[in-house]
Amino acid sequence: MNEFEFDTATSVADGDAAIHDGWDIGGNANGGYLMALAARGLLQASGRPDPISLTAHYLSPGRPGPVRIDDEVVKAGRRFTTVSGRMHRDGTTLLQLVGAFGDLSQPLGRYEHLASGPPELPPFEECTPRTREQGNVEVAMMDRLDVRIHPDHLGWMRGAPRGVAEIAGWFAFADGRPLDTLALLMVCDAFPPAVFHLDMPPGWVPTVEYTVHVRAVPAPGPVRCVFRSRFVQGGFLDEDGEVWDSEGRLVAQSRQLGLTPLG
Amino acid sequence: MNEFEFDTATSVADGDAAIHDGWDIGGNANGGYLMALAARGLLQASGRPDPISLTAHYLSPGRPGPVRIDDEVVKAGRRFTTVSGRMHRDGTTLLQLVGAFGDLSQPLGRYEHLASGPPELPPFEECTPRTREQGNVEVAMMDRLDVRIHPDHLGWMRGAPRGVAEIAGWFAFADGRPLDTLALLMVCDAFPPAVFHLDMPPGWVPTVEYTVHVRAVPAPGPVRCVFRSRFVQGGFLDEDGEVWDSEGRLVAQSRQLGLTPLG
Repeated sequence: MNEFEFDTATSVADGDAAIHDGWDIGGNANGGYLMALAARGLLQASGRPDPISLTAHYLSPGRPGPVRIDDEVVKAGRRFTTVSGRMHRDGTTLLQLVGAFGDLSQPLGRYEHLASGPPELPPFEECTPRTREQGNVEVAMMDRLDVRIHPDHLGWMRGAPRGVAEIAGWFAFADGRPLDTLALLMVCDAFPPAVFHLDMPPGWVPTVEYTVHVRAVPAPGPVRCVFRSRFVQGGFLDEDGEVWDSEGRLVAQSRQLGLTPLG
Repeated sequence: MNEFEFDTATSVADGDAAIHDGWDIGGNANGGYLMALAARGLLQASGRPDPISLTAHYLSPGRPGPVRIDDEVVKAGRRFTTVSGRMHRDGTTLLQLVGAFGDLSQPLGRYEHLASGPPELPPFEECTPRTREQGNVEVAMMDRLDVRIHPDHLGWMRGAPRGVAEIAGWFAFADGRPLDTLALLMVCDAFPPAVFHLDMPPGWVPTVEYTVHVRAVPAPGPVRCVFRSRFVQGGFLDEDGEVWDSEGRLVAQSRQLGLTPLG
């Protein structure tokens, strides 16, 4: 038994793991949770402490139950170990992955240039908790997370979308589990889609591909997040995320390629 | 023999291929060229016409000579086929890849929302050709490409960087080869790094991971490109690219995770 729910739900032993109940949206496990679960297996294979860049393709919905996580170390280099992997069950691949793992405890370089800073947000307590209820879908994972959304970024819930596909807020675990580099994989997929702010027909936004770059080890405390979709066209959409820690450092960047609702 | 250089240089037969001479920077094959070469092999395996999302991890420099491209079809779905693959030589993996392939000849959805348009650029003829000479490095691939850079984005060559890590310009093949979705993989890595505009110590910017989302089939004519690095920190940097066709449609988006020069 682990002290925290996220660690229990992402435990992997020799490639054996399970998609745990309660990390889902309408019955299908959240993509960030699935990535973190698979990443735990790949991390173990890499022998490194931190995911640096991880890409997942989502091939089948993740229902609760046992899964296998296969890994293949492609190269163990000086700085990084590259691992290819997959999560599968009964002959069906759920996720196909490739990632680079390394050690972020010391910076690899000193030069710094940040074109912008963390998103402007009211304090954690003044933002609005994301709840289990989201339209007619039940977001069960919100029992495990403490996601607080910028109060100005909730118009879509009242049928008044902003017309700008951007959503910002805070992330913490409900049980107080500290954030680490593995958790950042989950953070990057824990918010409602930024495209809910558009006048797009509503519905499920399936992820084709999702890449997270973990940029630093987060300092203690909740992280500030912002997600933006800039280009919705031809049935596809992007969603870019930034995650900033309590010391104002960029700790993760993400990008998803998704599909517009098929409805 | 193919009519065009790019097709000759990216030909693959049953996984047998070669890194061709003349697509390099200082002797190492360009990352976009290597991705396109590997993608040709993966495309053949997929039985689909277009790369949709392709991720490559760069593990060893690409010197000219024969390579093998292994592919494994992970899932052949209704819309997409997902393929894992690698390019290797003499037991050394050069690139590890995962991609989704599909058919972009018809849009998958009609809803559109673009937060911005193509980069503002002087006409093709008024932009400055990228040449073989770049500091003390020879960019041999510029004999094959016709890359035209915004005249205001060349200060770094004169030792006067702008301080904004953005570079924009036009891309065409020197021999007039039309652009298609495979070529877009090359386009996204054909410009000097945007971070050359910063006061960062100069040097080679190794790519850890590079993902391209092909968003549409390009219309005839050169494409307009813009590349931006927003966050240079801890030894890592991002570089995001957009490619727009002659009809003002977004045809590709890219993101790289790179390392700041080690010198």
